[in-house]
Amino acid sequence: MILVDGVEQQVIEVTDRALHYGDGLFETLAVAGGRVRHLERHLRRLQSGCARLGIAAPDPELLSREVLQLCHQQQDSVIKIIITRGSGGRGYRPPANAAPRRILMRSEWPAYPATAQTEGVRVRLCRMRLGCNPGLAGVKHLNRLEQVLARAEWDDPSIVEGLMRDADGHVVEGTMSNLFAVLDGVLLTPELSLCGVRGIMREIVLETAARCGLAPVERKIPTEALLRADEVFLTNSLIGVWPVRRFESAEFPVGDVTRRLMGALEETAGV
Amino acid sequence: MILVDGVEQQVIEVTDRALHYGDGLFETLAVAGGRVRHLERHLRRLQSGCARLGIAAPDPELLSREVLQLCHQQQDSVIKIIITRGSGGRGYRPPANAAPRRILMRSEWPAYPATAQTEGVRVRLCRMRLGCNPGLAGVKHLNRLEQVLARAEWDDPSIVEGLMRDADGHVVEGTMSNLFAVLDGVLLTPELSLCGVRGIMREIVLETAARCGLAPVERKIPTEALLRADEVFLTNSLIGVWPVRRFESAEFPVGDVTRRLMGALEETAGV
Repeated sequence: MILVDGVEQQVIEVTDRALHYGDGLFETLAVAGGRVRHLERHLRRLQSGCARLGIAAPDPELLSREVLQLCHQQQDSVIKIIITRGSGGRGYRPPANAAPRRILMRSEWPAYPATAQTEGVRVRLCRMRLGCNPGLAGVKHLNRLEQVLARAEWDDPSIVEGLMRDADGHVVEGTMSNLFAVLDGVLLTPELSLCGVRGIMREIVLETAARCGLAPVERKIPTEALLRADEVFLTNSLIGVWPVRRFESAEFPVGDVTRRLMGALEETAGV
Repeated sequence: MILVDGVEQQVIEVTDRALHYGDGLFETLAVAGGRVRHLERHLRRLQSGCARLGIAAPDPELLSREVLQLCHQQQDSVIKIIITRGSGGRGYRPPANAAPRRILMRSEWPAYPATAQTEGVRVRLCRMRLGCNPGLAGVKHLNRLEQVLARAEWDDPSIVEGLMRDADGHVVEGTMSNLFAVLDGVLLTPELSLCGVRGIMREIVLETAARCGLAPVERKIPTEALLRADEVFLTNSLIGVWPVRRFESAEFPVGDVTRRLMGALEETAGV
């Protein structure tokens, strides 16, 4: 089911700037057990992303109503919200009178491996890098060719995710997930001032870790350092936390920090 | 007028990956005096861009026919060709059975300043930088948020273009044009191995310059170097060559090299 500006339809105007320039942003929300997870956080990030791109953000209450309309009587599904700058004539310049467009799509819950959360997953290193741009870093915008080409690098269904590096060889994130590692006893996640997406689950894990006394640190992580990590895990709004058991030649256990965080997150979700 | 896969229509499926990820590329062609300019070069670049992105390129003869259909009886107009990877389900991974989509749009010739070619133009330096990624450099792909945000930086109608730098402070190109400069007697254009679009007019100018014995060089150009250039000009398929008279605090004449090249290009076009 798709809603475009509140109306159920399958098509959009060819003049929309998301089609021409990727001029917009998106959110991916989990609906699990009949509940939309972290709706307010997603809507907050959407607002701040719109501000970064200079797009007039839609009313969060309107978006909220449409999300609830879309997932009515759904147990488990995925809601994607896309906000575009709207239609415009030729040229990069944003039209002065641009009317942003909102697209909400509901999809089936993805067919993730059943054991991913409990037993962990295998990931690889992508050749495609992330370009650095502090002007866009952190924003979940629609310019995602890097992720598309990175994800096109492998077919092996036993590999569930690929990690991407910046030009200097720091691992930044997965194609669809954020990255955490325990290195020399410290819980780390890549800092995202130059590239990457500030994931909602990343934010929640950082807060939860701080509350658990784990003192998480955001900093650059060289690829070589990740290979000798004690624990590695991935996060996003749909997968929650996936322990990484294998990354290229390196193997990791489902470690204590990962288990402790997963437990704490489950408690929070249950409240 | 808009053709989507050969059919006249105003809309496109919401599931198209260009909308979700900017997963595709485009060409902008000039129709001037009833003739489509450099059609074969555009179609060749489109083919090689599709190869870079792993998109099955549409038949160039089919595209060619549709371009001619669209500009039938038009004197001066602009044809934009967009090739998308087509529709797909959730996730970055390109669908195995993706059916690329072609969109052709005809627009009015833009209202460029009448004196731009003869008397030159004023340009500025953008704050928004270009992210570097050798995996995407040169391709006229649909991830254009950097250009959109750069073009949103100024309103002053007396400034027609903004120059963009890479992270290291080299000027690379304008938001919608390529850049040339004469520096210490040498004709230069930024090399584009890490970012930027390999423009058709840039290619033609390079070839024409070589034929005229001007021995053009592709290399990195620091912003400070551009400020002390002897001549500067911009190129793209619609504007041809625009001499730059003013860039921030620096002023330039419409110089001999620029004039010579403009003359040579006109002769070629007239053949």
